[in-house]
Parts: sequence; C-alpha cells; structure tokens
Amino acid sequence: MNLLLLSNSSSEAGYLVHALPAIRELGQALPADASAVFVPFAGVTRDWDDYATLVGDALADLGWNIQPLHRAEDPVAALEAASVIIVGGGNTFNLLRELRRRELMPLMARRVREGASYLGWSAGSNLACPTICTTNDMPIVDPGSFDALALVPFQINPHYTNAHPPGHRGETRMQRLAEFCAASPAMPVLGLPEGTGLRVRDDGMELVGPHDATLFLGRREPAVLRPGKVEVSA
Amino acid sequence: MNLLLLSNSSSEAGYLVHALPAIRELGQALPADASAVFVPFAGVTRDWDDYATLVGDALADLGWNIQPLHRAEDPVAALEAASVIIVGGGNTFNLLRELRRRELMPLMARRVREGASYLGWSAGSNLACPTICTTNDMPIVDPGSFDALALVPFQINPHYTNAHPPGHRGETRMQRLAEFCAASPAMPVLGLPEGTGLRVRDDGMELVGPHDATLFLGRREPAVLRPGKVEVSA
Repeated sequence: MNLLLLSNSSSEAGYLVHALPAIRELGQALPADASAVFVPFAGVTRDWDDYATLVGDALADLGWNIQPLHRAEDPVAALEAASVIIVGGGNTFNLLRELRRRELMPLMARRVREGASYLGWSAGSNLACPTICTTNDMPIVDPGSFDALALVPFQINPHYTNAHPPGHRGETRMQRLAEFCAASPAMPVLGLPEGTGLRVRDDGMELVGPHDATLFLGRREPAVLRPGKVEVSA
Repeated sequence: MNLLLLSNSSSEAGYLVHALPAIRELGQALPADASAVFVPFAGVTRDWDDYATLVGDALADLGWNIQPLHRAEDPVAALEAASVIIVGGGNTFNLLRELRRRELMPLMARRVREGASYLGWSAGSNLACPTICTTNDMPIVDPGSFDALALVPFQINPHYTNAHPPGHRGETRMQRLAEFCAASPAMPVLGLPEGTGLRVRDDGMELVGPHDATLFLGRREPAVLRPGKVEVSA
C-alpha cells in the first residue's frame, strides 16, 4: 500500500503547501499525468465544485489528471481507473454517509489494497482507519455505521492537540481519547498534530512533519513518537 | 413537562453547585423524599458507582431518594416509579448506546411526557433533543441510531463557546454548528454556554444563568437570547 494520511490541509503557507513535498514523494512512482480521483464528500458548507477547484489548484504542479468523484458519470469506473485516490477533509460523518449511500466503500478499500495510492487529510485520514470513532467532527448526519476503510489497523486522531480554551469545562482531547481507549482498550490511536502526516508503505511507516505524534493504547501512559520511522502495534 | 437542561455540571464552586437554585426550583412541587432515578451511562472513564455517589452527594440537600439506574433490580419499575429522572454528562454516544441496549428510551420519553421531572446536564441535555447530532463528544461507540428522547423540538449544543486554541486549524464550534445547520436547515440549535441552563415548562421556556445563549437556524445570522423567557421556533 501507498498512503499519506495528513492531519490537516491549511497552514499559514497556503492550502496543502506544507504537505507538498510528502505528496510529491507519495506520487514519485506514478506517471506525471496519473489519473486521480478527488472525493469532496466531507465538504458540507463548502460547495463540492469549489472544493475540487481548490484542491486541483493546490496540486496542479504534480501534473495529475484529477477528476472530482461527484462529477464522474460512472464513479465506479473512475475509481477502478484511478492511480491515486484523494480524500479531502471536512465532516467525517458526511463523508462516510455519502460514500456509503453510493456503495463505494468496499471498492475504494479494494483499489487501495490493489495498489492505488491514497492521499487523505483530516476526515480523509479518519476514513482510512478501522472506524471513524476518533474523529473530532460533530455527528451532523448518521452514516449508518461507523466502519471505515480499515487501510491501517489502528485509529488516527487528526488535528491532535491537548490545548484547551481557558475556563472551558468540556472534555480535553486527551480525556476524549481516554474515553475511546476505555471503550476499545486493544485499539491504538495515533494523535497527529497539525503539520504532520503518516506515510504508510508495504515495508513500514514514517511520521512526516516537524512535530512529535502521541500514541494512545488502553490505560498505558501515552507514548511520544518522533518524526521518522514509527511502529504502531497493539 | 418539567425539564431543566444544563450546559455543564462542574464549576469553581463545586459539582452542580452553580445549578442548585434552579434544580431546587425544578423540584419545588415534589415531596422532599421524591423518588429519583440517576442515569450514569454517559460515564466511560468514571465508574458508575462513583458517579452516583458524586451526584447523590451534590444533591443531598434536596432530600430526594436517588436510585442509580445501573443498580436497579428492575430498571423499568424504577423508571415507572420515579418522579425525577436525572441524566448525567460524559459521553453522549455511550449514554445513548447503553439506554438503547436496555430498550429504555421509549419508556423514559413517556415518563417525562406523563409528568416525571427531567434533570440533565451536558450529554443529558443532548439526550433530551430530537437527536444527538449536536453533541461535542467523540463517537467512541456506535449507538445504532442518533435518535434521542425528543422532549424538546430543537437541538441543544452544551458547553457552547466559540473560543479556540491559538494556531489550531480544526473547525471552530460555530463552523461545526454551521455544518449541522446546512445539513438540517429547519432544525434550530440552542448554544448553551457554561453556567447556563434551559428551564422547560408546559407554558414556556426560560434561559437560566448569567450568560446569553446563541440560537442557530439554517443560514440565518445567529441570534442572541438573553436570560429570562425565551422562545425557540423554526
């Protein structure tokens, strides 16, 4: 498999700019005009056409031929033909519901297992996990089930931070993840801070970006993972 | 109906202390030894017995006879006999899943419609709404469906704030609620800040506490609701 799972898309530098070197590396074995499909379904307040334009512009230098999935006459054929599947962020529940309504989840998982590259950020990284149970998003729509693509055998929490607005009495992120770990004590969760991503290849994984990630598992003390080669196991 | 839906439980003053005057007012028509049931199922990292003790101690001065639902030999009989149903905060998904597993949701809704008083905070306030779609909690377990008690015909967002840790690129609360409003444009959402609560009686509603609430509906500009008599309609 050939995955790049990013925490976030935007930064001071511009949309996806911080991640371009890693995205380029993801695609280095592909032809310059590789067929890519962009999945915009996490967009809720953002128009899907506008979203596709934003992403197309951000990735223009790669030369990929990017087709937005909502514009494909035959979405199944588009995914079957794609060398790269790009899944953008937004609301994870909406993303999963739209893919499930179209019955595209098993096909997407198969295509990536067959060798299509997968680039996701935020909700797109949640989607690559066994379930969407570690999303930060509001459950604005019911996706029918929380099962996701299971491209990796652990959970990701994107935009990971333990910062908290002063005076706020709601749960901290660490408390929320501790709740997940209490409910699913054998499932690791990788907290990916802004600016980082996880590069997954058949022969191993690498934490990319300037920050450490945090690994949660059951009641164990959270572990710090440094950028570079990482292992995540239960 | 006789409801008190609080944003939060804890404050500098102590557990539920800020809400005691409103809770006392909720119970003023009840005998001092009224039968109450406490629902601890939103607790995930908190032991249910410990949780029941915490709540029992916090409400001791009211004189209610509080039975924790998880200790009831016959939960159906306990709810049928209760004059007050108390639903504590924690994780809304866990709360809903546990109630649904025990098939207690229709009974709880009926008891409150028949006249049992309802006191909820945080997840307990989410539960009183048509769905749990405006919870802030992480979806750590799948409740099977997002449908909730529908005691009020609108959604509540507890712990409402638009504060945001500096530098964080994830969604603000207002952006999350805007996504809900885009998906459900006819459903009002009441953002209840910390320290506030909504008092619901057959003849009207009142915002209690020292802060304004914010009302969201579709694409309309959010409206500010001042403490005192309020109306929420689509």
